[in-house]
Amino acid sequence: MSYKEIPRGSLTSPVGFVAGAAQVAIKNKGRFDVGVLYSPTLCSAAGVFTTNKVQAAPVLISRLAAQAGKARAIVVNSGCANACTGEQGLKDAQIMAQKAGEFLGCRKEEVFVASTGVIGVPLPMDKVVLGIRQSSDALTGTGGGKVAEAMMTTDTTVKEVAVEVELAKDQKVIVAGAAKGSGMIHPNMATMLGFITTDAAVSPECLQSILKKANQYSFNMISVDGDTSTNDMVVALASGKAGNKAIESDLSPFYAPFVEAIQYVCMTLAKMIAQDGEGATKFLEVTVEGAKTARDACLGARSVVASNLVKTAIFGEDANWGRIMCALGYSGADFDPNRVEIKIAHVKVAEKGVGVFFSEALVRRILENKNIKIWIHLNQGTEEATAWGCDLSHGYIQINSAYRS
Amino acid sequence: MSYKEIPRGSLTSPVGFVAGAAQVAIKNKGRFDVGVLYSPTLCSAAGVFTTNKVQAAPVLISRLAAQAGKARAIVVNSGCANACTGEQGLKDAQIMAQKAGEFLGCRKEEVFVASTGVIGVPLPMDKVVLGIRQSSDALTGTGGGKVAEAMMTTDTTVKEVAVEVELAKDQKVIVAGAAKGSGMIHPNMATMLGFITTDAAVSPECLQSILKKANQYSFNMISVDGDTSTNDMVVALASGKAGNKAIESDLSPFYAPFVEAIQYVCMTLAKMIAQDGEGATKFLEVTVEGAKTARDACLGARSVVASNLVKTAIFGEDANWGRIMCALGYSGADFDPNRVEIKIAHVKVAEKGVGVFFSEALVRRILENKNIKIWIHLNQGTEEATAWGCDLSHGYIQINSAYRS
Repeated sequence: MSYKEIPRGSLTSPVGFVAGAAQVAIKNKGRFDVGVLYSPTLCSAAGVFTTNKVQAAPVLISRLAAQAGKARAIVVNSGCANACTGEQGLKDAQIMAQKAGEFLGCRKEEVFVASTGVIGVPLPMDKVVLGIRQSSDALTGTGGGKVAEAMMTTDTTVKEVAVEVELAKDQKVIVAGAAKGSGMIHPNMATMLGFITTDAAVSPECLQSILKKANQYSFNMISVDGDTSTNDMVVALASGKAGNKAIESDLSPFYAPFVEAIQYVCMTLAKMIAQDGEGATKFLEVTVEGAKTARDACLGARSVVASNLVKTAIFGEDANWGRIMCALGYSGADFDPNRVEIKIAHVKVAEKGVGVFFSEALVRRILENKNIKIWIHLNQGTEEATAWGCDLSHGYIQINSAYRS
Repeated sequence: MSYKEIPRGSLTSPVGFVAGAAQVAIKNKGRFDVGVLYSPTLCSAAGVFTTNKVQAAPVLISRLAAQAGKARAIVVNSGCANACTGEQGLKDAQIMAQKAGEFLGCRKEEVFVASTGVIGVPLPMDKVVLGIRQSSDALTGTGGGKVAEAMMTTDTTVKEVAVEVELAKDQKVIVAGAAKGSGMIHPNMATMLGFITTDAAVSPECLQSILKKANQYSFNMISVDGDTSTNDMVVALASGKAGNKAIESDLSPFYAPFVEAIQYVCMTLAKMIAQDGEGATKFLEVTVEGAKTARDACLGARSVVASNLVKTAIFGEDANWGRIMCALGYSGADFDPNRVEIKIAHVKVAEKGVGVFFSEALVRRILENKNIKIWIHLNQGTEEATAWGCDLSHGYIQINSAYRS
């Protein structure tokens, strides 16, 4: 492990980034709801986006910036997703990029646009433009945390992390990230909103391939409610200010430690989203080992973590392992049910696909914890994957039946 | 429409079937939990079974009977699914068939076996065998309803229906069915348990193909919680006692009205399951019209009806149509989001993929009803499909966190 976490790290921890946020009452008063992140230096840029056929206007705009591979800024609002808003929505997203460019002094093509909140409602553009102006006026080298706050909707916690990586002796870089959950979370190619910054020098192509792979085993491995959103995106900006010899392929000696840091940041943010899933009372980690292929391991782990019946059993602190077998069975993973072993924490509850004797009292005590670990061995091969999620509680019903989110 | 419903019809409404049930306290005392259906005449038999990789022992046994195309009996128990029970489970399922054959006087290969209830627990075989004996001793020509009762787990209502079909002048046949829900319902190729009886003469091959197709647009179009069970099966027995010239292909003049009746029975039972979904307070019907292909229509309708976020919005009586667009978008259906039109009952809420003005008060009043109809037009073609489900309420959480089901 060549990285270490920076206490109170944020999107502005890497050299070269400033950020600011504003309160313009798009959602509730008294909370940041517009944020701007900016790098005066042109950055390598990358992004992964939702596979939902219905794509929000900001996704369409940001995709272009990711394709160009170069950008300087991210502008984000919460409270309104600018999805299913037609041509007006596209114009509004374009105006967000244009206004940000104007206030920051860069080209509108160099601005990522992200929105999150209610679907089907037009953006209140007067408020949004005011917010972009105020955020741009408030840029500081420690403002990263404010952008992370401005992204929140039903989130109850800010989700950010930064690590310092030693690429070589006397060659350190910083990788940071921020994300938001916490409903409509069942990402496929990207999650709700995740922003990554780094001062490493890395080519756009290399950054894109690293981000894509890291996303596959982090954001794509979490589920809160099985709903893949219209607004999912994870975008990355690399300022190059750390001054390392640019990472341009996996032949670079810096490649491996840099990838490790990006993966750690993505995985940490993904877990934070799962932990703060709407109504969650428990954090669920499901590891599938011994799979024939990595794909089988991913399918199995993700299916178990997403099953409503597994999630309600965890909420009820009930060691109902039959529901785990059932979710594995319909996951699409290839495996022999008669070889499956299941543990809840360290307690074996099934072997060769059949229940074994275990202490119900002991497992119930384990399930009373906030963090629950389910461990599945398929005994078919050597591949493994881990997925993260949360329980399904009355809180989820409450939040999603009471609030047009 | 060439069929009419028979008041208080049951599995024994068609000529040639007798049935009985017993209370042997596999689940709660005071309820039927073992049932036997029997036809002294050898029947044409067909079946569709779960696509879950983890298949319960009774599924493995019943699949053989369906393949043989000939059977006389169904034996069923509730309270224990006999799934994930290994070799012992397979032996137990075989003993169920063997004992039923013994008490009824038929070959064990002519008996369908079905179980439903908790996964991973061995069958209490002394109780089960006692139940089969008592049920076989209690066979009557009006016992169909008792078998439907013996199938119930978290179901709150008995699910059965029978229709009389006029195949030609003076040539009537009866088609009947019974089913059980009400959790782990997201069938793929078959649902939890569905039994169909008819006195029509029909070849096994023809019965199989009719059942498969009817299942596709009925049981396969409902979802309660997205979990495809290990025990799903729909099996059909045709006694031939109506004396019609046997239906052997779609060239038979009787084919069309018979298919219509089977489809009506399957669809009625499927709707009953959705209506009685665990914790359901509302019944949800989603129709997708104007799709390019039937598959696109099915994918779209089923995705919307299964979305946790759509389901909680319906529970909350909130016209949150953006969640409908989102669920359509990740359904895998091919469509252009900019052409989508959505109505809740008769009120248009979105057009060309964008919200239109509608009276929130009016739609809220509509959503206060128990039966909710969502209508989606893709404006891409002429295919359509309907899916059925229910809302996601506190009751679902309560049932599934409190009960090892």
